[in-house]
Amino acid sequence: MNFEAQLNRYKTMVEEGLNALSFPGAPEILKEAMRYSLLSGGKRLRGCLALAACEAAGGKAEDALPFACAVEMIHAYSLIHDDLPSMDNDTLRRGKPTNHVVYGEAMAILAGDGLLSYAFEHLSSQQHPAAFRVLGILAKAAGVGGMLGGQVLDVTNEGKASDETLVRQIHLGKTAALITAPVLAGFALAGADEAGMEMAETYGRQLGLAFQIVDDLLDLEGDAALMGKTLGKDVAEGKLTWPACVGTEKARQDAAACIDLAVAALNPLGEKALFLQTLAENTLHRVQ
Amino acid sequence: MNFEAQLNRYKTMVEEGLNALSFPGAPEILKEAMRYSLLSGGKRLRGCLALAACEAAGGKAEDALPFACAVEMIHAYSLIHDDLPSMDNDTLRRGKPTNHVVYGEAMAILAGDGLLSYAFEHLSSQQHPAAFRVLGILAKAAGVGGMLGGQVLDVTNEGKASDETLVRQIHLGKTAALITAPVLAGFALAGADEAGMEMAETYGRQLGLAFQIVDDLLDLEGDAALMGKTLGKDVAEGKLTWPACVGTEKARQDAAACIDLAVAALNPLGEKALFLQTLAENTLHRVQ
Repeated sequence: MNFEAQLNRYKTMVEEGLNALSFPGAPEILKEAMRYSLLSGGKRLRGCLALAACEAAGGKAEDALPFACAVEMIHAYSLIHDDLPSMDNDTLRRGKPTNHVVYGEAMAILAGDGLLSYAFEHLSSQQHPAAFRVLGILAKAAGVGGMLGGQVLDVTNEGKASDETLVRQIHLGKTAALITAPVLAGFALAGADEAGMEMAETYGRQLGLAFQIVDDLLDLEGDAALMGKTLGKDVAEGKLTWPACVGTEKARQDAAACIDLAVAALNPLGEKALFLQTLAENTLHRVQ
Repeated sequence: MNFEAQLNRYKTMVEEGLNALSFPGAPEILKEAMRYSLLSGGKRLRGCLALAACEAAGGKAEDALPFACAVEMIHAYSLIHDDLPSMDNDTLRRGKPTNHVVYGEAMAILAGDGLLSYAFEHLSSQQHPAAFRVLGILAKAAGVGGMLGGQVLDVTNEGKASDETLVRQIHLGKTAALITAPVLAGFALAGADEAGMEMAETYGRQLGLAFQIVDDLLDLEGDAALMGKTLGKDVAEGKLTWPACVGTEKARQDAAACIDLAVAALNPLGEKALFLQTLAENTLHRVQ
């Protein structure tokens, strides 16, 4: 397996899928504001996970493309709303001015609402027998008990004392939910059985936790120019982070332990798991 | 048919349905902010329409209750976001302080996002054979080519010269889409055929247009205490309204003409249409 080539194939599919979205009936300015954030690059981790998971479980990557686009829309909406002046008040994202800096606050709120709505509209127009099921997976992951709930806990607990249980809950919600969802959806679209869905859940959850711990570490120690965003903000805003709870060395170990669990969960799949396992291991390289 | 008794039955069902929503996994403060706006009264027009349409088309009102709740969640989310300081900057809604006045801007944005997400999460958990179809009806109506698109046109055209085509487009999007959706969904859940869906579409669209024209008229001529919100804002903000385009007298006539079309569309249903037809006619009474 050539990991980089395969990752690029997935990423290209996701980019082309997102580029092809026409947002029928949307006013031009709304389309523009939505596209500004949706097509501004990024690793497309969540979209690639949907395609890779579907193939790992024996399906065709194409079958997971609508879901890949939907989960990237949800991710883009969450970033637009998170960056708003009344939220994290961020002006830079992936090296570009944030949505509200370019389009104003009102349009940024509407562009986020538009991406959130269109994610479901897009999935609701699909014919795949598992279309309704994976829409439900996405709704739950994005919603009040998932990503959004985690974001609320994140915002409302700024400045509070470190608390490992709470940080874990925040990370599981705000990050792991939307990383687990495309893995689950990919498996579901490939027709996975209960055991398959269990392993997808474990892999996604542990990868998601590791990913957020690494993100916390990079906010402390990363290179702003390389990352294209403002760093050191977690500390400045009194955010609850994993390294703030357990120290940076233990945080690094915890991330590695999560990745071990993620990798092990997929062992029953044999060679088919190799791409997802390598992707998980690579998550750690950014902080090692 | 006792119209008031039937309307009350529907409204009570919707209120009870909304009250019973538990928003599993949501942080307490998010639930509270969502419930503040969702359970703050209102006519429940959209929810009642779903139940009434389902019965009119030969189905059971109960079958449309999840959709009725979902459409009321979408309506509540749209009001929370519309009222934000960067949008219409409204501080009073149904006689109560608006969501961001009580919970702050960040939580109001998140509460709106939560209601939008949960509307789809709720529908995605339903077993009815038409559940996926009506979720699609709602997504399209709420989204970029529907309510949200209309809201964008509304916000971006403030202060522009009156233009009947544009006002019609705004009204169809921002109001008629989310009034048509529950009628379509009610019919779909009752198993209506193509002809039935056509009549649902016409009824909903015309009722929705009339409803917004009446709303425009009330903003000019209504009683703020009676309506529980700030009036005269359309003119103050330079909003494009129907009466501003065609004059108040012609606007009144146009609303009546829409209602005639709505009523006529349902004539093939005979007696079963009586409730929906009376509801349409009553829309006009507020400005006559």
